[in-house]
Amino acid sequence: MSKSFWSKYYERYQQLRSQVCIGLDSQLDKLPPCLDSARNPIWEFNRAIIDATRDYATAYKPNLAFYLADGVRGLEALYQTVQHIPAEIPVILDCKVGDIGSTMAGYVTAFFKDLKVDAITINPLMGSDVLKPLLELEHSFAFALALTSNPSAEDFFHKVNMKQQVADWINGFDPQRIGAVVGATQSSDLAQMRKLLPGRIFLIPGVGAQGGDLQAVLQHAIHSKAEPRILINSSRGIIFAGKGNDFAAKAAEAARDLYLSCKDI
Amino acid sequence: MSKSFWSKYYERYQQLRSQVCIGLDSQLDKLPPCLDSARNPIWEFNRAIIDATRDYATAYKPNLAFYLADGVRGLEALYQTVQHIPAEIPVILDCKVGDIGSTMAGYVTAFFKDLKVDAITINPLMGSDVLKPLLELEHSFAFALALTSNPSAEDFFHKVNMKQQVADWINGFDPQRIGAVVGATQSSDLAQMRKLLPGRIFLIPGVGAQGGDLQAVLQHAIHSKAEPRILINSSRGIIFAGKGNDFAAKAAEAARDLYLSCKDI
Repeated sequence: MSKSFWSKYYERYQQLRSQVCIGLDSQLDKLPPCLDSARNPIWEFNRAIIDATRDYATAYKPNLAFYLADGVRGLEALYQTVQHIPAEIPVILDCKVGDIGSTMAGYVTAFFKDLKVDAITINPLMGSDVLKPLLELEHSFAFALALTSNPSAEDFFHKVNMKQQVADWINGFDPQRIGAVVGATQSSDLAQMRKLLPGRIFLIPGVGAQGGDLQAVLQHAIHSKAEPRILINSSRGIIFAGKGNDFAAKAAEAARDLYLSCKDI
Repeated sequence: MSKSFWSKYYERYQQLRSQVCIGLDSQLDKLPPCLDSARNPIWEFNRAIIDATRDYATAYKPNLAFYLADGVRGLEALYQTVQHIPAEIPVILDCKVGDIGSTMAGYVTAFFKDLKVDAITINPLMGSDVLKPLLELEHSFAFALALTSNPSAEDFFHKVNMKQQVADWINGFDPQRIGAVVGATQSSDLAQMRKLLPGRIFLIPGVGAQGGDLQAVLQHAIHSKAEPRILINSSRGIIFAGKGNDFAAKAAEAARDLYLSCKDI
């Protein structure tokens, strides 16, 4: 990796002033029917989506699950997709891995050296051992799950005050290496998380499909107006905006709409 | 899946009276040199290891990281490996996934329907939403991380009383569907976890290489002498017992030794 995620993100944001992260949750059975006969439908779909939306994206975020669900062909599609994303746009692999030692080193090799993404998401439950192999690799970056937006986030994040604990833990690491995944469902949570994690880049899922409120995010989750340090992820809302032959044009429209809605904070 | 993990495990245990789970952490750069020129070294290695050790194994546990680290060829090796494991021996994919909704459904499809393993490991941090897609699939099984054996388990499992919280959470699910990963480093933890999780199948990493004490496990972690309900995983200690042409025979020896050490509780 010749350039760190932090610098790529920073330069891309300065150039585009976009908060938009496009989630490539390219589930095989949701692709437009016109791709049914493609040799590798997920790859063909992603190529068209990327070509159509690249002017609005500060980052792309493929989610590993949807690629593994299509087996070896799916993993091939993931490799082709990452290669196809323009070098100046950082790629975050959403994999939520959280293992230790040689296992985590295996993931770090697979994702940063072989697949060549710029950042990954990680699950912090096993503690700081999770980050060791990653931090040893120059220029790598991880977004740690700090608060998720799903209903059963109640089970642990809220119940055992995991928010505070994970935030304290994240604050022990360099903001240029470790960001935070912060769910967008409750605006009071957003404000609290920003207070707990000043200056950190937030990767924010849950806007749109999961009911998160964009205005609340723009108001409460930003670091500052000059440097918001937020990536607002939208997956299905963009990539599945259309089902016809014009699916890529519809994705571009949806990406542009989100881009414009975020632009003036 | 024609048979549940629970029944396969139960029948295999009754037949073999073995606690041994063999971890297929088949890291490419640790394989015996005699496999250097193989078309797919990980697959050739695993085939030999499985053929040599199958008489001692109540389960096999490949760890996803080491397969993804070898890219598309690694994923092919994983598919071939799972196919090669005799149908009566349950396969646990160690992937520690913990996501929600369609993402988790993607993993469930990938692992249970496509790859056809019998169980997976999961990270419970995001709460019960993580288990929904899995529990909807008949016969599937997951081991939830209940206590890990790495040094930084201190960061969360101990510090915020996560052990008790996760145990309470696990107890809300059917023991025939949800087991527990319980690290083997501290014997006082083992006794506490068995008390917290009566009747549950424990998948126990950390014996051997990571310093866990086998006798402590056999004394403190079992459900009962008649039905211990423990799977003691050993990975490197078995699969990398030898580095020469006789690596498979050495693996068989190590598997048999562990098998015999566990046999008389």
